[in-house]
Amino acid sequence: MELSQIIKFARGVEPADILLTGGQVINVYSGEIYRADVAIAANRIVGIGAGYHAEEVIDLKGGYVCPGFIDAHVHIESSMVPPPEFARAVVPRGTTTVVIDPHEIANVLGLDGIRYMFDTAKYNPLSIYVMMPSCVPATEMETTGAYLHWYDIVPQLHDHWVLGLGEMMNFPGVIYGDEEVLNKLRGFDKAIRDGHAPGLSGRDLVAYVAAGIGSDHECTSVLEMQEKLRLGMYIFIREATNAHNLLTLLPGLTKANCRRLCFCTDDRQPADLLNKGHIDDLVRTAVGAGVDPVDAIRMATLNTAEYFHLYDRGGIAPGKRADLVIFNDLHALNIEMVISSGKIVARDSRVIPWERPLKSTFLRSTMNVNWDPVDIRIAAAGHQGRIIGVIPNQLVTEHLIETLPAVDGQVVCDPGRDIAKIAVIERHLATGNFGLGLVKGLGLKKGAIASTIAHDSHNIVVVGMDDRSIMTAARTVAEMRGGMAAVDGNDVLAKLPLPIAGLMSDGPIETVRDQMEAMLQAAYQLGSGLHDPFMAMSFLALPVIPSLKITDKGLVDVEKFQIVPLFV
Amino acid sequence: MELSQIIKFARGVEPADILLTGGQVINVYSGEIYRADVAIAANRIVGIGAGYHAEEVIDLKGGYVCPGFIDAHVHIESSMVPPPEFARAVVPRGTTTVVIDPHEIANVLGLDGIRYMFDTAKYNPLSIYVMMPSCVPATEMETTGAYLHWYDIVPQLHDHWVLGLGEMMNFPGVIYGDEEVLNKLRGFDKAIRDGHAPGLSGRDLVAYVAAGIGSDHECTSVLEMQEKLRLGMYIFIREATNAHNLLTLLPGLTKANCRRLCFCTDDRQPADLLNKGHIDDLVRTAVGAGVDPVDAIRMATLNTAEYFHLYDRGGIAPGKRADLVIFNDLHALNIEMVISSGKIVARDSRVIPWERPLKSTFLRSTMNVNWDPVDIRIAAAGHQGRIIGVIPNQLVTEHLIETLPAVDGQVVCDPGRDIAKIAVIERHLATGNFGLGLVKGLGLKKGAIASTIAHDSHNIVVVGMDDRSIMTAARTVAEMRGGMAAVDGNDVLAKLPLPIAGLMSDGPIETVRDQMEAMLQAAYQLGSGLHDPFMAMSFLALPVIPSLKITDKGLVDVEKFQIVPLFV
Repeated sequence: MELSQIIKFARGVEPADILLTGGQVINVYSGEIYRADVAIAANRIVGIGAGYHAEEVIDLKGGYVCPGFIDAHVHIESSMVPPPEFARAVVPRGTTTVVIDPHEIANVLGLDGIRYMFDTAKYNPLSIYVMMPSCVPATEMETTGAYLHWYDIVPQLHDHWVLGLGEMMNFPGVIYGDEEVLNKLRGFDKAIRDGHAPGLSGRDLVAYVAAGIGSDHECTSVLEMQEKLRLGMYIFIREATNAHNLLTLLPGLTKANCRRLCFCTDDRQPADLLNKGHIDDLVRTAVGAGVDPVDAIRMATLNTAEYFHLYDRGGIAPGKRADLVIFNDLHALNIEMVISSGKIVARDSRVIPWERPLKSTFLRSTMNVNWDPVDIRIAAAGHQGRIIGVIPNQLVTEHLIETLPAVDGQVVCDPGRDIAKIAVIERHLATGNFGLGLVKGLGLKKGAIASTIAHDSHNIVVVGMDDRSIMTAARTVAEMRGGMAAVDGNDVLAKLPLPIAGLMSDGPIETVRDQMEAMLQAAYQLGSGLHDPFMAMSFLALPVIPSLKITDKGLVDVEKFQIVPLFV
Repeated sequence: MELSQIIKFARGVEPADILLTGGQVINVYSGEIYRADVAIAANRIVGIGAGYHAEEVIDLKGGYVCPGFIDAHVHIESSMVPPPEFARAVVPRGTTTVVIDPHEIANVLGLDGIRYMFDTAKYNPLSIYVMMPSCVPATEMETTGAYLHWYDIVPQLHDHWVLGLGEMMNFPGVIYGDEEVLNKLRGFDKAIRDGHAPGLSGRDLVAYVAAGIGSDHECTSVLEMQEKLRLGMYIFIREATNAHNLLTLLPGLTKANCRRLCFCTDDRQPADLLNKGHIDDLVRTAVGAGVDPVDAIRMATLNTAEYFHLYDRGGIAPGKRADLVIFNDLHALNIEMVISSGKIVARDSRVIPWERPLKSTFLRSTMNVNWDPVDIRIAAAGHQGRIIGVIPNQLVTEHLIETLPAVDGQVVCDPGRDIAKIAVIERHLATGNFGLGLVKGLGLKKGAIASTIAHDSHNIVVVGMDDRSIMTAARTVAEMRGGMAAVDGNDVLAKLPLPIAGLMSDGPIETVRDQMEAMLQAAYQLGSGLHDPFMAMSFLALPVIPSLKITDKGLVDVEKFQIVPLFV
């Protein structure tokens, strides 16, 4: 808005567009809550206090108004829908800005995938900022659909939606001065650089911070949070579908340090977004655990805006963006209205539908499998072999050495010992690669489950009790251009198509939630006792977390950082 | 420092340059104080914690180490010495960064004057950032040595030492949309814009903030501070030689708001800098008044760095600038050592002398008076006339209407009624302008005092009890190329040369302090009972503060904003 115009609105000499009266402002600057009117014109807050007039007057009837919520770190792909559909889900929850790291789609489609996220991020009632993925691929021991060098990502800084470098998961690369890693850090040294360093401590942590990393969202203990806070890191307190750190970390929150804490969700499946919520869920949980409401709201607004240098938002002040949440209870929240960029975008938990310009997005099918070499029979070349041991609710696995079940010179599955066969089939480059192994702890008695959500390289991962089921499941997800399947022999019990990069659905998020529920029910039918065997399976191909994993190149001993044979 | 190098230092695999051991770190991020070693290499903090080694190990013996202090807003010219000498005074007090608004010298010498400050700011152990003066001249009712339009100051943003637009004192210009003012605001809208708005409130204040102003240092009450804090302004709490706001405002400081407060000195004369100190004085006073030491130190460090987006300083963390203060008492401070840019620059209140490259600075004499028209006789053209009424310790004056003392058809001074003659003689452009009036309340019984420090246009201001003394005093300061003088008839009782722009001495600051003391003694000798009659006189030519003032163009009725005749 032109400067002389905003001054006129602020003086009250011209009527604003919207006036929120009768409400209580949550002031993140002074820490107070008090009655004040808020005047909005175009996309800006233009007045606070008495004496304003507007075309549209809304009586908040004593309700609270706070700044729009900001998610400090999120992978939209984990919600299995593209940005516009994600916005539909989170905007009625009060979220008006998110900062995303699109490394999931980057691993599949490289810069084209990131561009897709940029394109679909536009024309929504949600501001979507991007941190350029820093670790694509995660390791050399798997085949991804793309390889992002420093010279691929640094030029993206010209786009003002790009705020910096995404979570630098490769902390050994930082600490031991890997030149490619350092070039990425150098390229973003005038921007923000996020971290991801679970358990990093002592001088290694000091080096990581000295290299320019400003945040971490992987703290699982108060001591870890305190050590990182002391070194000047911002701590993003994360509540994801499969990682709940808030209640663990809250005891470490003090009046002295809480302006260095932010909220993030990282990864939330559709059920969580729809049932529990988004950043509002973290605010609600924190307040319920005794955190001062204004402090909790700061962690969802001002602190995050300050960290990312988004000076036009994060607080209710003249001239700031009119991103506002109106709610009626400091404990339950009960969000009644959401205003984004000066427009009412949601009322009573329902988003107000908006039109997006029809733009074709050109995303190729990412299902590119060379099936000819794929043969999942395992000849029993020895007695003792490695088995991936799943630990419930953990990303780490055990590296088990046991006698492998065999019949007629072939390694077989054994439901009695809860031993299944696992395969990772390369699907990006049609290399024909496939890794084979055994896994214990998923609980399947029969059939097979498959998915193209397999962190981080998102090849086809499939676990099953017989080869027919395994191949049926793998072929099913391939035919859908990606997704999940649960099969028994030739029968497909349930399937969830994720045709967008093999990661996201093109349907409504409510449908995806229901389809995911059907997947879980089918997996339970097949015998699994885990809460979410697909989630567990999706991390078995991630070779950066110990101990024994599998990729399209084979079994990986993570501690030794090398491919290892099945038989010992 | 090259990235791979700082990582090696931080890991402790190479020895640092300096290791501070046995000290207690004041952590402005977490709010804690605890034992930790600090390793420094080149100009950076490279390590914190255990296991570091260095060429030089300094045992702090339990002493405290905190980040170097930052003055959020200061006019170096008010200390009557140029930047290198100012640095000599403040660096041993723990100040490592200042943000200056050189509007005093800008009023005299325009961009050349600002360039002089930039030049002399280099090669000192003090980082000197600049806010471009926004109000030169202050009004059209006085003659300055320069006129800075928006197109003069906006291009200076290319210099990375320029952080933004200096205190926008012309708040009516903002509120009523003066195009020149708006152009200045627009030009700096990607940078920081400081404010100066004593008493501004309500919708006018909202408009001022909506226009982009981010700070204010003119609060004189808690209510005023709270109103401005709520609108998102940073509040600079100021302790100047002639304005003491700290103890008044401290009751408004809360745990919730104190991260939006910063310390500044604005204007400190040499005696105050040398005797009381600089930003350390504010920290000490605040702690003595009950403020938590870490909160007080934050107001002198992190908060200010954050406001000005100086991300490389303000806290003790790996990778930040090694600007550090070592002191041994949380209440008295007792600064033992100061480190700036990784070098020890002061020990035990003594700066370590440093060499500056000899660079000629080309500053012309700023004494450019056309004496021919100057005739300070006042014919008694009426009985009743205006008298400027000085109020002790106030910048506001009274607009008195009284019978003017006259003898033989000439207006004369009257020691019995404490009425003196005042003149402002234009000295920049040789216009020959001079304003004449009367002033009550300075207490002189005889003689005259003159100064070229006369806010804001810094012409020659002189007050005296007889015309001979007045002209002697005026001529004396002119001969010195600027400064102060106290005379009795033809005898010069004391003089303080300020040949640099008529504002600053070229001698040591201790000498200036002594010379200033001699000026005060001389003024007392002449009869003045005011604590500092020169200070009082220096504001009598400032036509932005009510009620009756005088410039080289004549008497000014500030409320009516116009020149008025002596006689009514």
